[in-house]
Amino acid sequence: MNRAQVEDSYRRLQERFCEAVETVDGSSAFGSDAWERPGGGGGLTRILSGEGHIEKAAVNVSAVEGATPAGLSERMAVEGSEFYATGVSIIVHPRNPHAPTFHANLRFFETDTGSAWFGGGADLTPYYLYEDDARHFHRVLKQACDAHDVADYRAWKKACDEYFYLPHRKEARGVGGLFFDHLTDRLEEVWAFQTDLGERLIEAYIPILERRIEVPYGKAETIWQEIRRGRYAEFNLVWDLGTRFGLETSGRVESILASLPSRARWVYDHHPEPHSPEATLLDMVTSQPRDWV
Amino acid sequence: MNRAQVEDSYRRLQERFCEAVETVDGSSAFGSDAWERPGGGGGLTRILSGEGHIEKAAVNVSAVEGATPAGLSERMAVEGSEFYATGVSIIVHPRNPHAPTFHANLRFFETDTGSAWFGGGADLTPYYLYEDDARHFHRVLKQACDAHDVADYRAWKKACDEYFYLPHRKEARGVGGLFFDHLTDRLEEVWAFQTDLGERLIEAYIPILERRIEVPYGKAETIWQEIRRGRYAEFNLVWDLGTRFGLETSGRVESILASLPSRARWVYDHHPEPHSPEATLLDMVTSQPRDWV
Repeated sequence: MNRAQVEDSYRRLQERFCEAVETVDGSSAFGSDAWERPGGGGGLTRILSGEGHIEKAAVNVSAVEGATPAGLSERMAVEGSEFYATGVSIIVHPRNPHAPTFHANLRFFETDTGSAWFGGGADLTPYYLYEDDARHFHRVLKQACDAHDVADYRAWKKACDEYFYLPHRKEARGVGGLFFDHLTDRLEEVWAFQTDLGERLIEAYIPILERRIEVPYGKAETIWQEIRRGRYAEFNLVWDLGTRFGLETSGRVESILASLPSRARWVYDHHPEPHSPEATLLDMVTSQPRDWV
Repeated sequence: MNRAQVEDSYRRLQERFCEAVETVDGSSAFGSDAWERPGGGGGLTRILSGEGHIEKAAVNVSAVEGATPAGLSERMAVEGSEFYATGVSIIVHPRNPHAPTFHANLRFFETDTGSAWFGGGADLTPYYLYEDDARHFHRVLKQACDAHDVADYRAWKKACDEYFYLPHRKEARGVGGLFFDHLTDRLEEVWAFQTDLGERLIEAYIPILERRIEVPYGKAETIWQEIRRGRYAEFNLVWDLGTRFGLETSGRVESILASLPSRARWVYDHHPEPHSPEATLLDMVTSQPRDWV
């Protein structure tokens, strides 16, 4: 395993995932913006944002290198003076409020002093709770973990619940998934696991998307979706370490903020009707995280 | 001057400003939510959010006291073990995209070791640039400053341009205004200035609001307004120290985030048509701050 192989696998995942999303969307194609980083490296940002089933999807690959920025040294306890980082990030915001938002990220980091690690994860953010969807999503992620000694579904499911949490709202972002970082040991085996996980992301999400985009909905459901997307924006802008680090270190802002939803709404002191489907979702995100498998 | 007088003046400003906004709105009234802070004190959050000319307005007073939170000690170099803080914050998001968003804040802080200071300011965020509006706004703020030896329009106008700036976008939030903080000297005179400023806020903003809410507009202007309100949300959630401090120290979240717009929109890599009114606004916020008076 070397950085070129890792980067190449991320680019192939980007291609495959974009094809799968285009098929579901039914009417638009992803655009491609190649960009270069002044300090070294660059990336390919691919965005779909049309009138079909997908309101906005962003599937981005980056591979950057150069002198280790000061903020990075402190934040990640990086020792080398030169770093290399590659990653693929995926976010899908469907138009239909019954279809959940999907996010995944796989990343690899290496320094000139020989330290290297993998990180990544995937999580699902429904606007209406379909327990079948949460179970399916977690089942596929667990299968990816169970096939590899180096992977720990229980620990990483818990880490995901802890990371994708809005302390100021006392709310989970959604039904969680997997989150792992700084995996520095047995890199070849971790790489095999990460590759396997990447290959299962389509299976984890696309079937859910396909079955929910056909559910009828109206204006009220869209308003609720927009309120919850306000929460998504809050998480990304206030708490997400990757977003904040990117914004504070002058990364490519359009790629960093491509994860934001197309529309968000804030309603002062909003409370859904008791016992409504909206209240069910809110109950779920404000309760202790569930075991979905 | 004592804390009770300061707090009382903030409550009277809240009342007067709410009345002025209701008159312009034409159809809705402010609600009132009194709240208590577990550690001591509380506030009154007043929100108007109906179908009239004002999409959302928040006029909030708080007066909190108690043991100085750890974060506050570090952040503000506060020495006392007990603190008292009172403030009034005003935000008005009109529905018509030709009418600018208005924000103002007046605050007073005191500790048991005898240190005390005033802070505050006001700024204007247009979606379409009307230079007359920017000039009027700054002229009124400058008049308030010019009447008081302790006030420095030039310095505080510059501080406002520096504070209400989005580094990740390399954009100003709007046409600026005034920003001052930690005014610890000649407190009686500062208090007289701040009172004067508070009394002029209606004159600074309401005439602008009145003349712009009658300008015809359509869907395209509303979309542009939503994109710019996305920037407003980015500033408040990523950069505004008051918002971040509130969210990190478990303040009353609905009051803290009442400043957010009702709707926001993110469009990947959006660029207005060259020479359009939208491009004129963008040129202004990406250029060096102007002198408006």
